[in-house]
Formats: sequence, structure tokens, C-alpha cells
Amino acid sequence: MKIKEIPENTLERLVIYLKVLENLDIQGIDSISSEELARRCGINSAQLRKDLSFVGTLGTKGVGYNVKSLKFSLKKFLGRSQEWNLVLGGINSFGIFLLENKDLQKEGFYFMAAFDTKEENVGKIFNGVSVYNLDQLSYVVKAIKVDIGVIVAEEDPEKYLNTFLEHGIRAILNLSRVPLFPGQKDIKIENFSFSMGLTKLSYFLSR
Amino acid sequence: MKIKEIPENTLERLVIYLKVLENLDIQGIDSISSEELARRCGINSAQLRKDLSFVGTLGTKGVGYNVKSLKFSLKKFLGRSQEWNLVLGGINSFGIFLLENKDLQKEGFYFMAAFDTKEENVGKIFNGVSVYNLDQLSYVVKAIKVDIGVIVAEEDPEKYLNTFLEHGIRAILNLSRVPLFPGQKDIKIENFSFSMGLTKLSYFLSR
Repeated sequence: MKIKEIPENTLERLVIYLKVLENLDIQGIDSISSEELARRCGINSAQLRKDLSFVGTLGTKGVGYNVKSLKFSLKKFLGRSQEWNLVLGGINSFGIFLLENKDLQKEGFYFMAAFDTKEENVGKIFNGVSVYNLDQLSYVVKAIKVDIGVIVAEEDPEKYLNTFLEHGIRAILNLSRVPLFPGQKDIKIENFSFSMGLTKLSYFLSR
Repeated sequence: MKIKEIPENTLERLVIYLKVLENLDIQGIDSISSEELARRCGINSAQLRKDLSFVGTLGTKGVGYNVKSLKFSLKKFLGRSQEWNLVLGGINSFGIFLLENKDLQKEGFYFMAAFDTKEENVGKIFNGVSVYNLDQLSYVVKAIKVDIGVIVAEEDPEKYLNTFLEHGIRAILNLSRVPLFPGQKDIKIENFSFSMGLTKLSYFLSR
């Protein structure tokens, strides 16, 4: 259990450092200077060193950071050295794409079950993951530990959110069109949609 | 042309207001108080009113905001009252999902062409969008206006980014595993991956 809470912007950057380091490791790069790592992460090296002090990792002067060891420290700090169980809310082409995607499994994120409110989808299986009626969530959370709920339903995403929260799921990735804010403490929700990303770009282009 | 630059966090919130208002409009809700709109957007109403002052929209005391008219103002402010032409970088199951997704078209985002470096994908057509070799981008940008490049390639996403930038594409949605930061001025890049979203949640759960 860590005591100090890190600011949201710092967390955002730590996640970026991890993804960039994972890619450097794949490319076979062993060590990197803080300046070069900072450049690849779109920030300055003073900020990078400050952020990494939260993780308790220091580079070696003149040598820089060891890529594998910094990656390992960040993974551990960010809770990525363990596996997490996911459930999906909503069956549509996006949901099926996520269930069939093997990359998330490689990173330790496993879809254990999927839920839909439409009876016609119940009983289907995608990449080994069964679809249940949303009403059956209580049985599933008794049988397996569920860590994260991923919502892709475009029809009434709030219903999936509320049902997930009622059954003790405290971390939500909401990929539906509508950003959701539960307004409860001790719940973490990440909202992202392609439309939100593209709208930030359309603002930039229209200035 | 707007003169005042708005802060990144404000932009982020304006995009959320737009998405929430679009959903209220679909639900047939005509007007909403600033308190209720703020609650649905996960902030307080003072912040909401301050942010909306950038857009130049004021609610009416005791009546609140007209949903359609605020949505319209925000769309205009965010560059969403016009259509934008997209190109895709990388053909994989994620890319094909995006090309076949009709929701983005409804919002005015149109994929005009797709690019890949693998010859076996060149010439394929998905939902009416042709796949070209990345080397052919120069011909495509001469024939059509390209506003936004969307990168999904997992192999060498930097190559797609650099080729897009070389050909004058200034706005990039990078959905590949690796966040990218071009380090050039007058370029806007949005980085998102499912893994990044989930890692923020795994940090929350592991505290």
C-alpha cells in the first residue's frame, strides 16, 4: 500500500513513460539518457526526473537509465506486475473487437465475461468469453474476482455503469460515446471515445 | 479565427460538455440547469460557467441552458460544425473496425483512404475505403484534402507519423501501442491506447 497520492497529470506521464520504455525494450535498446527518454515522451528531462522520483528510481550519472529495470519499476508501481480480470458491458462490433484482441491479454488484462441487456446476444461466445444477461452479474461476481468493467454499450451505458458499481466493481474504462461521472468516492472511471479524441483535433484545425 | 488559446484542460472539459449535451439531446431533454449539467460532467457549476464563458454562451437565470443551442455553440467552437477528412495508417483488425464504423461518419469524420506498408494489404477495400501503399501518400494528398491522420499500426507507427507529417498532415490521432511526440510546433497529436487507459485503472486498484 502506497501512502502518497500522485497527481493525475503525473500518473498520465508515468503511463506514457512505461509505454515508451516497453517499446524501447522491444527494439532491443538497453539504456537511455534522461534527455533522450524525455524527448521521446514529449517533456523536458527535469520533469521526467521529478516524476520518476515518485517511483523511487534514479538514473546513473553519465549512463542514464537501464531500460529493463526502469520498465520493471514502473510496471510494479503502476500495478501492472499482476493480472487483472475484466468484464465487458455491451456486445457490438467494438466489444467483439476487444474480446478478440490478444494484445490486452499479453499485458495481463483478461476478459472473463461479457454482459448485454439484449436476450439475442446472451449465450454467444467470443474468443472463449461467454455473454451473460446483465441481470446475471451478481452470480458472476460471486464466482470470479472482477477488477475492471469496460463499457462499450451505446444504448444506455449508464445502466451498465450502475450495475457494475452496485456489484462492487470500482474501476471502469468507459469507451461509449457518452462520458460518465459516477460522483462516488473510491471509484475510478476513465472516459475515452474516438469522437472525443477527434474533436480535440478538429478544434486545433479550426482555430 | 479565434485569438485566445484555451488551456488543454479546458478543451478537455469542453469536449466532455459537448458529448454529454449530444446525449441529452438524443434523450429529448430541452433545457438543463448549470448545476445538473456540471454534475453529469463530473465538475462543479462555477467551473462549468467559467469554461463556457470561452465559448461566449451564458445560461438564463432560473431557466438554465437550452440543450440544443448550447450544443450548437460548442460544436461550432470546437470545429465540429464542418466535415473532416481522415486517413488511416495501418491495416489490422482495429483499423478495419474503424473503417467499418459508421458512427464517426455521422459526426462528420470521413475516412478517405487507408495506408499500409505491407504490399499484401494494398488494393483491399473496406467499407468503400481503398488501401494504398504508404509510399503513395503524396499522390493522395494531391487529389484530396486530408485533415487528420489516424495511426493504428503496431509495427513502426513512427514511420506512419513521419510520412503523415512530411505530407502536411498536422493533426494526428495515435491509437497505436506507443505514444508518440513529434516535437514539432504547429502539430497536434492525441495519444490513446486501451492499455494506457487500463494501466491508469490498475494503478488505482493496486494502491
